[in-house]
Amino acid sequence: MPIKVAFIGAGSVGFCRRLFRDLLAVPEFADANFALTDINKPNLDMVAQLCRKDIRNNNLPARIVASTLDRRRALDGADYVINCTRIGGLEAFKLDIDIPLKYGVDQCVGDTLCIGGIMYGQRNIPCVLDFCKDIREVAARDALFLNYANPNAMNTWAAIEYGKVRTVGLCHGVEGGWWQIANVLGAKDKKEVDIICAGINHQTWYVRILYKGRLVTGEELLRAFERHPRFSQTEKVRIDVLRRFGYYSTESNGHLSEYVPWYRKRPKEIKKWIDLSSWINGETGGYLRVCTEGRNWFNTDFPRWLKAHDKPVGPGDRSGEHGSHIIEGLETGRRYRGHFNVRNNGCISNLPDDCIVEVPGYVDRNGISIPRVGELPLACAATLSASVNVQRMAVQAGVAGDVTLLKQAVLHDPLTAAVCDPEEIWQMVDEMLVAQGTWLPQYKREIPKAAKRLDEVKRKGLYKGTRKWKGAARLHVRTVGEMRKNAAAQRRNAAAADKAAEQRARDAKKR
Amino acid sequence: MPIKVAFIGAGSVGFCRRLFRDLLAVPEFADANFALTDINKPNLDMVAQLCRKDIRNNNLPARIVASTLDRRRALDGADYVINCTRIGGLEAFKLDIDIPLKYGVDQCVGDTLCIGGIMYGQRNIPCVLDFCKDIREVAARDALFLNYANPNAMNTWAAIEYGKVRTVGLCHGVEGGWWQIANVLGAKDKKEVDIICAGINHQTWYVRILYKGRLVTGEELLRAFERHPRFSQTEKVRIDVLRRFGYYSTESNGHLSEYVPWYRKRPKEIKKWIDLSSWINGETGGYLRVCTEGRNWFNTDFPRWLKAHDKPVGPGDRSGEHGSHIIEGLETGRRYRGHFNVRNNGCISNLPDDCIVEVPGYVDRNGISIPRVGELPLACAATLSASVNVQRMAVQAGVAGDVTLLKQAVLHDPLTAAVCDPEEIWQMVDEMLVAQGTWLPQYKREIPKAAKRLDEVKRKGLYKGTRKWKGAARLHVRTVGEMRKNAAAQRRNAAAADKAAEQRARDAKKR
Amino acid sequence: MPIKVAFIGAGSVGFCRRLFRDLLAVPEFADANFALTDINKPNLDMVAQLCRKDIRNNNLPARIVASTLDRRRALDGADYVINCTRIGGLEAFKLDIDIPLKYGVDQCVGDTLCIGGIMYGQRNIPCVLDFCKDIREVAARDALFLNYANPNAMNTWAAIEYGKVRTVGLCHGVEGGWWQIANVLGAKDKKEVDIICAGINHQTWYVRILYKGRLVTGEELLRAFERHPRFSQTEKVRIDVLRRFGYYSTESNGHLSEYVPWYRKRPKEIKKWIDLSSWINGETGGYLRVCTEGRNWFNTDFPRWLKAHDKPVGPGDRSGEHGSHIIEGLETGRRYRGHFNVRNNGCISNLPDDCIVEVPGYVDRNGISIPRVGELPLACAATLSASVNVQRMAVQAGVAGDVTLLKQAVLHDPLTAAVCDPEEIWQMVDEMLVAQGTWLPQYKREIPKAAKRLDEVKRKGLYKGTRKWKGAARLHVRTVGEMRKNAAAQRRNAAAADKAAEQRARDAKKR
Amino acid sequence: MPIKVAFIGAGSVGFCRRLFRDLLAVPEFADANFALTDINKPNLDMVAQLCRKDIRNNNLPARIVASTLDRRRALDGADYVINCTRIGGLEAFKLDIDIPLKYGVDQCVGDTLCIGGIMYGQRNIPCVLDFCKDIREVAARDALFLNYANPNAMNTWAAIEYGKVRTVGLCHGVEGGWWQIANVLGAKDKKEVDIICAGINHQTWYVRILYKGRLVTGEELLRAFERHPRFSQTEKVRIDVLRRFGYYSTESNGHLSEYVPWYRKRPKEIKKWIDLSSWINGETGGYLRVCTEGRNWFNTDFPRWLKAHDKPVGPGDRSGEHGSHIIEGLETGRRYRGHFNVRNNGCISNLPDDCIVEVPGYVDRNGISIPRVGELPLACAATLSASVNVQRMAVQAGVAGDVTLLKQAVLHDPLTAAVCDPEEIWQMVDEMLVAQGTWLPQYKREIPKAAKRLDEVKRKGLYKGTRKWKGAARLHVRTVGEMRKNAAAQRRNAAAADKAAEQRARDAKKR
Repeated sequence: MPIKVAFIGAGSVGFCRRLFRDLLAVPEFADANFALTDINKPNLDMVAQLCRKDIRNNNLPARIVASTLDRRRALDGADYVINCTRIGGLEAFKLDIDIPLKYGVDQCVGDTLCIGGIMYGQRNIPCVLDFCKDIREVAARDALFLNYANPNAMNTWAAIEYGKVRTVGLCHGVEGGWWQIANVLGAKDKKEVDIICAGINHQTWYVRILYKGRLVTGEELLRAFERHPRFSQTEKVRIDVLRRFGYYSTESNGHLSEYVPWYRKRPKEIKKWIDLSSWINGETGGYLRVCTEGRNWFNTDFPRWLKAHDKPVGPGDRSGEHGSHIIEGLETGRRYRGHFNVRNNGCISNLPDDCIVEVPGYVDRNGISIPRVGELPLACAATLSASVNVQRMAVQAGVAGDVTLLKQAVLHDPLTAAVCDPEEIWQMVDEMLVAQGTWLPQYKREIPKAAKRLDEVKRKGLYKGTRKWKGAARLHVRTVGEMRKNAAAQRRNAAAADKAAEQRARDAKKR
Repeated sequence: MPIKVAFIGAGSVGFCRRLFRDLLAVPEFADANFALTDINKPNLDMVAQLCRKDIRNNNLPARIVASTLDRRRALDGADYVINCTRIGGLEAFKLDIDIPLKYGVDQCVGDTLCIGGIMYGQRNIPCVLDFCKDIREVAARDALFLNYANPNAMNTWAAIEYGKVRTVGLCHGVEGGWWQIANVLGAKDKKEVDIICAGINHQTWYVRILYKGRLVTGEELLRAFERHPRFSQTEKVRIDVLRRFGYYSTESNGHLSEYVPWYRKRPKEIKKWIDLSSWINGETGGYLRVCTEGRNWFNTDFPRWLKAHDKPVGPGDRSGEHGSHIIEGLETGRRYRGHFNVRNNGCISNLPDDCIVEVPGYVDRNGISIPRVGELPLACAATLSASVNVQRMAVQAGVAGDVTLLKQAVLHDPLTAAVCDPEEIWQMVDEMLVAQGTWLPQYKREIPKAAKRLDEVKRKGLYKGTRKWKGAARLHVRTVGEMRKNAAAQRRNAAAADKAAEQRARDAKKR
Repeated sequence: MPIKVAFIGAGSVGFCRRLFRDLLAVPEFADANFALTDINKPNLDMVAQLCRKDIRNNNLPARIVASTLDRRRALDGADYVINCTRIGGLEAFKLDIDIPLKYGVDQCVGDTLCIGGIMYGQRNIPCVLDFCKDIREVAARDALFLNYANPNAMNTWAAIEYGKVRTVGLCHGVEGGWWQIANVLGAKDKKEVDIICAGINHQTWYVRILYKGRLVTGEELLRAFERHPRFSQTEKVRIDVLRRFGYYSTESNGHLSEYVPWYRKRPKEIKKWIDLSSWINGETGGYLRVCTEGRNWFNTDFPRWLKAHDKPVGPGDRSGEHGSHIIEGLETGRRYRGHFNVRNNGCISNLPDDCIVEVPGYVDRNGISIPRVGELPLACAATLSASVNVQRMAVQAGVAGDVTLLKQAVLHDPLTAAVCDPEEIWQMVDEMLVAQGTWLPQYKREIPKAAKRLDEVKRKGLYKGTRKWKGAARLHVRTVGEMRKNAAAQRRNAAAADKAAEQRARDAKKR
Repeated sequence: MPIKVAFIGAGSVGFCRRLFRDLLAVPEFADANFALTDINKPNLDMVAQLCRKDIRNNNLPARIVASTLDRRRALDGADYVINCTRIGGLEAFKLDIDIPLKYGVDQCVGDTLCIGGIMYGQRNIPCVLDFCKDIREVAARDALFLNYANPNAMNTWAAIEYGKVRTVGLCHGVEGGWWQIANVLGAKDKKEVDIICAGINHQTWYVRILYKGRLVTGEELLRAFERHPRFSQTEKVRIDVLRRFGYYSTESNGHLSEYVPWYRKRPKEIKKWIDLSSWINGETGGYLRVCTEGRNWFNTDFPRWLKAHDKPVGPGDRSGEHGSHIIEGLETGRRYRGHFNVRNNGCISNLPDDCIVEVPGYVDRNGISIPRVGELPLACAATLSASVNVQRMAVQAGVAGDVTLLKQAVLHDPLTAAVCDPEEIWQMVDEMLVAQGTWLPQYKREIPKAAKRLDEVKRKGLYKGTRKWKGAARLHVRTVGEMRKNAAAQRRNAAAADKAAEQRARDAKKR
């Protein structure tokens, strides 16, 4: 019997179509059934048209059995459910970036940790729990939930602990850095480099690197990065962290800079640490800008996509995303090794059991096997521990609608804590709750109280969110007209839902 | 640089030559260096001659760099050290079987648990610690110790916890049952059946069986075994355990029967549970008999071995032993999955962290990766827990030379406890210590006291080891003359150091 | 506001009235409210009359606010709920002793472990869960459940893990042995001896004994017991265990003998280990006999009780039962140290987290504080581990009504496993389920199947429960007429619900 | 036999004499033996004279058996060893405060965490390990080490994990806040308030407060503190933390402000949070000042101390320090409850097993019993977790002399991380290593390299420690002349080694 794969948030053209084509590339899945669901009908329709075109052009027996706003219908009997939603869309995302700026917190991505990521988690968790309820009730018994949506660790945590669904969080985060490491070491192919990564999503560390079977030390890697002409410019935060910790982080320069207290707390110095050649290197609200441009461009460019001559699906076209490989491993027994987000359960012995870690895993017909990694270097563990504590509070707050716990989560966020004082944090969270109320059903009773508190501080002249700026390194959001002038680059950009791939693509071009 | 592999107990013709040839079958190891060591010069010489013949006949650059009684010379710079000793040889082994019979304890194998296995552990542990000391001092940095010697769990436990050497315990135990399961399910090939085994060495359970991707229940498996014409006769204990527990045991009928309190405690009923067509199905002292015969035969038959035309080494000749595959995985990155004996560390969540478990592992250049298995079924865990407690006491006793702890270990052995009372156990252990003193340096000070205690109970007429019998199911040890009459079978037998393989070979013949 | 204490199984004259009087002895509880409930109206009425008499005679403001068959009414608003039920009464208890005898299992008490204790657990668990439901629903918020009912560990386990009620299991088990130890050491007062006990209920070990501040070794204690004129006769099992393990057990000779595989498996030798001067030293079905006699006598003797001139309540009359001291500690802050049954949670580091351990605790207004004990001696831990595994299976079976798991529990019981084979165990459990169906609602659907299986084996002549005997050491149950001849002793006996106290009382008399 | 108590750092007049007199107040210790050791002969002599005077004036048989610079002689046969050293004295302490100021880090106490506490730990650890070596070698078997020296958690951690000595860390930290809580709640006596505190030394939380048996919520406590006329002014940081976390911290306002990132990072706002009426409320380098003044004053005032008419030792004079009570409990069995610093071992379930926690404990002849506390509120645990990670790195660095790990410890310190960037931290640590080299034997090989690195950055104009200020809230260190003008107050001050007591004393006066 063919497998059934359902996509939630299928209107996300980048992820959904990419994973869809990856699955079609597996011979055993040529006849698979797919179901697409989203809350945005136009986006869903566009993506469904592109997917149908892929089936048709490749002459496959696969079927889109549903493309529907009715999520339960899409999930009905599904063996695999893939989450690629962006809850609140760009509208809410903009608030995640702009309100914190008023309190001095300057984020680059803001979708994983820091105040933006925490609030994004609050919007996601009620949805994730709804998805899980549907999966438990209508999907196949023991269906697997593949979560691509950020904040990945929080969503996966909620799905496992509260949604009670078998879940794995997926991210290609380790791929980009692996490619960079191979590059700086002078490898001809990533395969010459063996890596073990361990940590939490977007803060994973290359804890063991073998180059042609030889162990590479942190010292050696640092020198290699420092002398690399481009990375020494674009990866200043990552290289500084490597200098201090002895380990390279999987995370991009911009993302990493917002997870730790050291690099973005002094507005005047932010630019010292980042590079504006690509948004992912640290641009204020960089991901928001590129997503906004991409979404607008896709709407404009869609007719062209529909007509384009695409590569045939198949091994040559398959991406590095783990999703299709996991399903392939489980169904066919072809063994796969990747890095997955799972409940820790002692895998990393110096992180708590209940947190979601990103660690190596093997997939075959025996399931997703997560080997024990053991102890992380102390500095890595200390940094992760701070984030894990924030995530735990944020997840529990998001599940229970507990405003105090939510504020305590933000209070303990390393960058926010380095920038704000407690009263500023309390006001900032109130302001965000009020602004994002539409997407926060669990805080329904609390939001009017937050609004009242805000009014009161304003009335008393004690309001703190008074900084007027666009951040230390903000770029202009290009209009479709502007983008049209450089259409080729834009097409690539629009396709790049993949943050790291985007950079690798740029890198590849420049070499 | 070619790898160096050292064998301790290289005079063990079955294991040593088998693993040696397996390694030669890996193209990257064609030029490997091997070092052989043993305390028995004639045996060592015979095996070395056979190994040199293998190199010569296959035109390989590999070298036997040492064949020596000097263990440190053999281990010098070794990357991998393989232990295939039998400490105390057949002489001590005979005592492990015969003394317990005087106290009513009737063992089939007696080399893993029960009183025989516990005493075997006492003989092994001082040697294992000596080997580990040498490895730490003269082998390559971070050399891997591959332990094949029984009692495997105790030896591996001692090597890791007290020897402080990176160790993995290896056994092909799961292979035989896997083959049987495939057989009873009607599979054409073992590969149609996916298994996850978990437990402790020689008491591992098939906790998850997929046949062509479909989950097989205990009920289904029970019915399949019950209706199998031969296994329903030869595997009565295993099938009964499957009936009670819902899970099939990896261990042979004879071995399993001596680990639990239910099948060998009433002498008159033992034969109901066993089958004498193969020693491994339960014959009293069966393994002792077959080893004795095999060793005698090898001494006689050696000239013929030396002249024989052997198969060329290569994939077609390679055995199912994990050893060569592990080394291949670590050195070449070719991924391998097997079942390995390692420190639990939470892998099986309802067994203690410190015990040695046998669980699935993946090997590649990233090391030996042990995924978390989770919780075992309660009845399986309860049975294992009893054995683990015995092992822990036996290991600590063996390290410290603590007679009381040793007796407490035996006191808690399920079969011994079902047969004997405490005073009988105390006397039996004293008697064994006295008889095996040669191989028990750690008990040097204690053995005279044990002798004195024994004398005293004898003098007082309180001696309990008075049962005169050869066990419920003892067979005659054949002379070389008798064996010569059936030389072909004997040759196969002599080669079969592999307990399960021996049975599979018979099985294959009979089908 | 006065506290409210509810007794379930209040018809148990020994426990209920004893604890009631103990509570009245606390000045702060002079005005407490008590509620009594039972399913047996005559018994309840008799006890209520005695309690009312105690209030009246002592001129206290305390009140019996309810004496009712309606449990929820009794529990309504209760701060403390004390369980002193005997589920199934003597009728079921008799089956716990007599059916196993047909399969060769000879128990002395049979209410904690072994086949009798396991079945008793099956009868208790549904009731305990009902009590817990009522407590959650109608008792005071965060009410404390004090469980005196056996099997104590299983009941406490069920109440905590499945009943979700704050529970402590109470037993005076450690008191008797403490008194014996003081006695053999020559102490003038128990207070000269400091003890730390740890283990599981009825299998707790004196792991640290200080006599006048000096550490007493196992060796010294053994010699002291061996030379004690009476204990050397009455405590042979306990002394033998002390000889083998190095630690004295809290449990009486008879009870201990049925928890381990060594002393009751050979019918002809049982009498070597026990002493018939008191039932608790090992008499077959001894507790059943004494309870039967006691209950009959109480019914006869009640009018005399009602008229008797009792001691005034107060410190001089207060018993060693922990119950009133715990409540006193929690309410008044007067610090108390006792040994309590609680979820392990790492307190004994080499027993699993989820089991119920009996360990030292301190009580004051800060709650019941359970210090970490650390690691038990290996032999003690090994013995306990076997019991804990049985308990876990028995509890889960009892909650779920899972016959297979129930049989697996019995299969792993040390004494049963030393006596029976698996098929005998399977039949014995079926037979007990059928016989006790009235008290086993959770097995309602399974019992007809068990009956069918039994019929089938009988029809086929394969029925195994064919041993015809009354056990190795059975005494005659005295009639009321016989007892009347020795009324004074009988009165003491009827009051002694307290197993150990009964022995201490005898001891005291004999000195 | 009388007990022997040894004091290391006996020249610390406050602690040593206070504990000495407390011990003399226990009747059973009237004949105890005391040994005093210090590296500073004049201080040692002065304290020894005062102690001898106490014995004499109270007519006790106790003896000062040694007052010596030879530590091993003092420890010889000691049952209890009390550590009240200040390693590096005021000279090093001044560097702990002044160098960080150059990099913008403004500390109040600086002896527990933050950069000052971390460096203090580096100075202490080699000494603590030396003390432990001596204790293992010459003290009584299983002697107890009572550590009063700060940084208490780090010292206790080192002593247990690396010194392998039975150790408990002692601090009266919880007393002050307990007194405050009783005060704001309107209690007449601290005894009306029951508290459970849990956390790590100097960051312990009142996790459960009962006032006359009634639970006090965080909300209620907050209102009570906010309306308290004086605490609302002096405890602004503690009250703000109570507001955010819902729990009151044991730690003084000044200390707490330097452990978290929120209150001292903006120099201009520090004064908003602190109060200069007492150094402990937040004064820059306040403890350094008061210690300096106190030491100078003591030297001047000593003749007067020697002549003074002291209170007789006895219950009325006994302090709240736990030390004498612990020894009393262990030796006499008189039960005591206090808050102690011990290895966590699961006591606080959401902190790591290996860290040192401050939690309730019961002491009697059974030892120091540490009950399991369970889970801390998430925000409290998150804050502690950050400190614990710093401590672990600092301890391991201090043991191994690992500069990188030391810098990583500082890098993760919450306040330092909120103020500095990584390069500043690297330079600051180098600068402190160079300045404190005398007291850092473990860094002997590393310090020249640090000096070289510093020279290099200075030469290149990259030196960062350029801030010229005395901190946001620095007070003048009074000369002896100035102090003489207010001698009475000064005498009290000099006696107050006890930070909290000092404040309580002031409080008491002002009421």
